[in-house]
This record gives sequence, C-alpha cells and structure tokens, in this order.
Amino acid sequence: MAEKTLETLFEDTLRDIYYAERQILKTLPKMAKAATSQELAAGFEQHRDETEVQIERLEQVFEMLGKRPRGKTCDAILGIIEEGKEIMDEYKDTIALDAGLASAAQAVEHYEIARYGTLATWARQLGMEDAAKLFEETLAEEKATDEKLTQLANSEANVKAA
Amino acid sequence: MAEKTLETLFEDTLRDIYYAERQILKTLPKMAKAATSQELAAGFEQHRDETEVQIERLEQVFEMLGKRPRGKTCDAILGIIEEGKEIMDEYKDTIALDAGLASAAQAVEHYEIARYGTLATWARQLGMEDAAKLFEETLAEEKATDEKLTQLANSEANVKAA
Repeated sequence: MAEKTLETLFEDTLRDIYYAERQILKTLPKMAKAATSQELAAGFEQHRDETEVQIERLEQVFEMLGKRPRGKTCDAILGIIEEGKEIMDEYKDTIALDAGLASAAQAVEHYEIARYGTLATWARQLGMEDAAKLFEETLAEEKATDEKLTQLANSEANVKAA
Repeated sequence: MAEKTLETLFEDTLRDIYYAERQILKTLPKMAKAATSQELAAGFEQHRDETEVQIERLEQVFEMLGKRPRGKTCDAILGIIEEGKEIMDEYKDTIALDAGLASAAQAVEHYEIARYGTLATWARQLGMEDAAKLFEETLAEEKATDEKLTQLANSEANVKAA
C-alpha cells in the first residue's frame, strides 16, 4: 500500500468536491423550479451556470496532477442535499418554502466554502500555485453566492412584512 | 394538518441543529484523541466545551418557544461526521492525519455557520430578539473556531516544511 501523504489527501478531497459539484449541478435546476420568488429562481439558475465553470476548474486541477477526473462518493453533500429535498417536499405550497430553499442552498455553499478553502491552502503547500488560484476563484464565487442568499433572505422577509 | 409557516421552519431547523450539536459533542473527543498535534487536540477539547454551552443556548430557545428540547435527525451532519470518521480510519498513523482532521472540523464549522446564520435571521424576523442574540453569540464562536483551524492548517504545514 502506498504511503498516505498530503498529496493523497489533496487528491481524495479533490475527488470528494468533484463528486459534490456534480450532485449540486443536478440539484440546482430542481431548486430553481421549486422556488416561488423569481429572484431566488434566477439566483439558482445563475449558480448552476457558475457550477459548470467550477467543475471545469476542478478538471483542470486533475489535469495538472496528470489524473483522469474521477469523483468519490461524498456523504456530506448527499446529506445536505437530502435535507434540501425534505424542505422541497415538506414546505411545498407554503409561504415558508423560499426561506427553506435559501437556507438549504446556504448549507451547500458553506460546505463548498470549507472544501475550497482547505484545497487552496493545501495546493499552496504542495507548490501548486496555479491550482490554488483556481480554487480561490471558485471560493470567491461561493462566498458571493452565500452573501447574495443572505441578502435575499432579509429582503424577502421585508417584502412580506410590508 | 397545521399550516406551515416561518415559525414551523424555524422550529424544524432548531431541532436539526440541536441534533447536530449533540452529534458533534460526541465526536469531538474522538477527534481530540486521534489528533497528533497537541495544539489541534487542545482546540478540539476547547470546542467540545463550547459546544456544551451552545447546546444550552439552544435549550433556552426551545424554552422561549414553550417547547421541550427535541432533536430531528440531521442527515447533513451525519454525512459530514461520516467523512471525518473515514479520515480518522484511512489516515491513521500518516503524516496527513492532522491536516485531514482539521479539514473535517472545518466542514462541521461551516455547517453550523450556515445554520446559525439562518436561525439568527429568522429569529429577528419572528420578533425573537433574545433568541437572535443567542444564535449570534454561537455564530461568533463558530467563526472564531473556523479561523483558528485555518491558522493551524497554515502553521502546521510551516512547521513541517521548516
């Protein structure tokens, strides 16, 4: 058995987030369809497009490693998405649906923020400066999406309260 | 069937994070035991103590609602913890173990950051100012823990590279 090092951990985590991003790509259109607010739906659609680019960045990193892009089942994202599905089922046709969807999306964003932050740090430690920059681009997008969801959660409520 | 509102969603999410925190409380001592770096182990121990206080705050919010504290199975935290366990198994006795443990802990932190952020927003919208303040106290602690883990990830590597 090969000795496990930071390189091994880096590649395992790359495969974890690659799997996660592809699950997210499949889930975002369902969330967009479920959302009642047009703004929230448009946000999910836009993030779907961003996710495609983020997946391409991951494929670039696999290429830097000389490896074929391959996912590794990520129990964390499966659990997070499962909770999103529960919201879609349990809150269908209720006034709290959009708040629930936005909250589910923020849980997804924060998982990605954690993983990309870690990957950027490790890439730099492994001397993969170009990979670190790709992760940081994605990280900035995820943080912006999270911020937009927070603003939406606040403004939605203001509209309803008015 | 009662109509579902933001109050229902708030209570469901409160039960979700209550379940999650109790799982985290059980997991942190295992992570502390597994860590090879004393600083990382001490960090996990300290966060275990913080988690006890955070659970008490959640119980205070249940009390404000006039409800008995009750958890609701949280698939997200189960998945996140499962990935942490895989790290503990697969990277046992390797030089990458601590990096993997810190990364697993950051995934946990970010789940909590997402949930407490949402709960604070909803509490304020529901006019529960005292609950919002309790969530924000916890949120600040989670963010500080995440920041500390990032610093540790960087300094650890510096030590090893030196």
